[in-house]
Amino acid sequence: MSITVVGSIAYDAVKTPFGERERMLGGAAVHFALAASFFEQVRVVGPVGEDFGEPELALLRDRGIDVSDVERIPGGKTFFWRGEYGWDLNSRETLDTQLGVFEGFQPKLSDSSRSSDVLFLANIQPDLQREVRAQLPNARFVALDSMNLWIDIARDSLVEAIESVDCVILNDAELRQLTGKPNLLSAAREVLSWTPSASSSGGARGVGEASGPKVIVAKQGEYGAALVTRERFFALPAFPLESVIDPTGAGDTFAGGFVGFLAAHLGEGDQELSDELLRAAMAHGTALASFNVEEFGTERVVRLTDAEIAARVQELREITSFSGAPLQLRD
Amino acid sequence: MSITVVGSIAYDAVKTPFGERERMLGGAAVHFALAASFFEQVRVVGPVGEDFGEPELALLRDRGIDVSDVERIPGGKTFFWRGEYGWDLNSRETLDTQLGVFEGFQPKLSDSSRSSDVLFLANIQPDLQREVRAQLPNARFVALDSMNLWIDIARDSLVEAIESVDCVILNDAELRQLTGKPNLLSAAREVLSWTPSASSSGGARGVGEASGPKVIVAKQGEYGAALVTRERFFALPAFPLESVIDPTGAGDTFAGGFVGFLAAHLGEGDQELSDELLRAAMAHGTALASFNVEEFGTERVVRLTDAEIAARVQELREITSFSGAPLQLRD
Repeated sequence: MSITVVGSIAYDAVKTPFGERERMLGGAAVHFALAASFFEQVRVVGPVGEDFGEPELALLRDRGIDVSDVERIPGGKTFFWRGEYGWDLNSRETLDTQLGVFEGFQPKLSDSSRSSDVLFLANIQPDLQREVRAQLPNARFVALDSMNLWIDIARDSLVEAIESVDCVILNDAELRQLTGKPNLLSAAREVLSWTPSASSSGGARGVGEASGPKVIVAKQGEYGAALVTRERFFALPAFPLESVIDPTGAGDTFAGGFVGFLAAHLGEGDQELSDELLRAAMAHGTALASFNVEEFGTERVVRLTDAEIAARVQELREITSFSGAPLQLRD
Repeated sequence: MSITVVGSIAYDAVKTPFGERERMLGGAAVHFALAASFFEQVRVVGPVGEDFGEPELALLRDRGIDVSDVERIPGGKTFFWRGEYGWDLNSRETLDTQLGVFEGFQPKLSDSSRSSDVLFLANIQPDLQREVRAQLPNARFVALDSMNLWIDIARDSLVEAIESVDCVILNDAELRQLTGKPNLLSAAREVLSWTPSASSSGGARGVGEASGPKVIVAKQGEYGAALVTRERFFALPAFPLESVIDPTGAGDTFAGGFVGFLAAHLGEGDQELSDELLRAAMAHGTALASFNVEEFGTERVVRLTDAEIAARVQELREITSFSGAPLQLRD
């Protein structure tokens, strides 16, 4: 099932202890789309400025990504972010953010973007996420990302956006902030209990029976990610790497691998959103994210091969499995 | 194979968002011994004061723990720690530390404590760890814990202690601090490369061929733990709990489950320190630690049953396994 993603297309300036880039292709929609493109047809919706280069568009097209809804704003400047990471890459400082064409952005979706069965609402203003969500009322699977800023200044709208999707993908700290619950499992279960309020238009629902989110993914940075559904829990460590160069876009790349894998398999006849499928999707998201951080920006993922992804998923399975050595207890 | 543990026996005053205890049994050696006692005979070496109660000793004895090397210092006061945890339990503040009988502690090991094949050096001054290590030259498996304080003020001695053991169990932040390497895998591999310096007495070695540590366990708090050997990597999330009451002693309880499981199985004829055995030990350490945090101090672990441990290990296997849904890539 094809995927539509709405979110930022950006130029990033990034400095890490291992080097820097002054102006590289970035943005949540870009990282997501590149990762998801290994699994399914992806359509990108988002604005760029007059300064946005043809080579960057070509890079997306080369991965089979549909960029016809990438809107070039006359006289506009592409979203720009500058950040610097600390020595252990777990802390980062935003030095500059220039919204550019993102200020006043109104997503315009073509018929083909509206026809996708899977939708990813990357981290943008929750009102915009809801507008886009409403344009794909029949989508079978909708996932959403967000950030601390929107929890701070637009929580009500974000909660309403969350109530309208199937899957929420957030950093674990954001889940805690969103719910006010310090315990990850409690926080996830709180969000799983949210259902569309009477006032908001219910509309047709996606995969599964009950409405409201049924899958929560807590991204945990270098520690991996956890999956919470109404019945079950799953956790996967990050793939161990001795060399991590640039974490920028890792979360969106994870989301692209996760949602992309689900989209490819939900398209197979009556395949349901089973725990088995979700877990395999977690592994593919984790594998994609691990490649992303090995080089700056999109540099590694654009030349990735499917064999490399498959091998890393297999390695993930190997480093997480343990067998049942016989238990010797003496009490 | 029986286990000797040397470390603190303490009274803790702990306040968490979920309650408080003014004076409860604690200390690294206590938490370790209780956990390890489910797997093997444990002997505790450490000092207590005149204020130390008979009921606390009885609690250890009831678990089959040998307390004949618990040394009661006339006129002394038992080690005391007071701490308070923040709302998400990931931060804690030490409000008071009274070394008491730990000041000037000189470990005296009986013949039976010296006869153990497995030794755990809980977090104490590295010079003392080395002294005790030297008293069990023929131990088959020796593991060590430490803390940031000793890395700050006694790093050389700590490095020498580490070079004399088989297994190092540290928080991931401590591993980074110890090696100056921000990357967990690089930090662990650095420690794995340490071998006894020419100046220090090599002595007989334990399991395995080469000397120097061959197993590194990085404790990651709520995220679980990772295992790094010379050839392989393994990671396991913490067991997901909706209610965590008091994390005090979780690391030592983990170590007790981990080392205890190894000790029980290394005793089985020619069983080697295989990756499979280490991984199963990680699962048992993780299970034990998860029980420990469900209530204050030792309250949960003292009434734990082997069936509960086995069930939780099985649950851990369930929440970490994923199957190989067929890969659908399109590049």
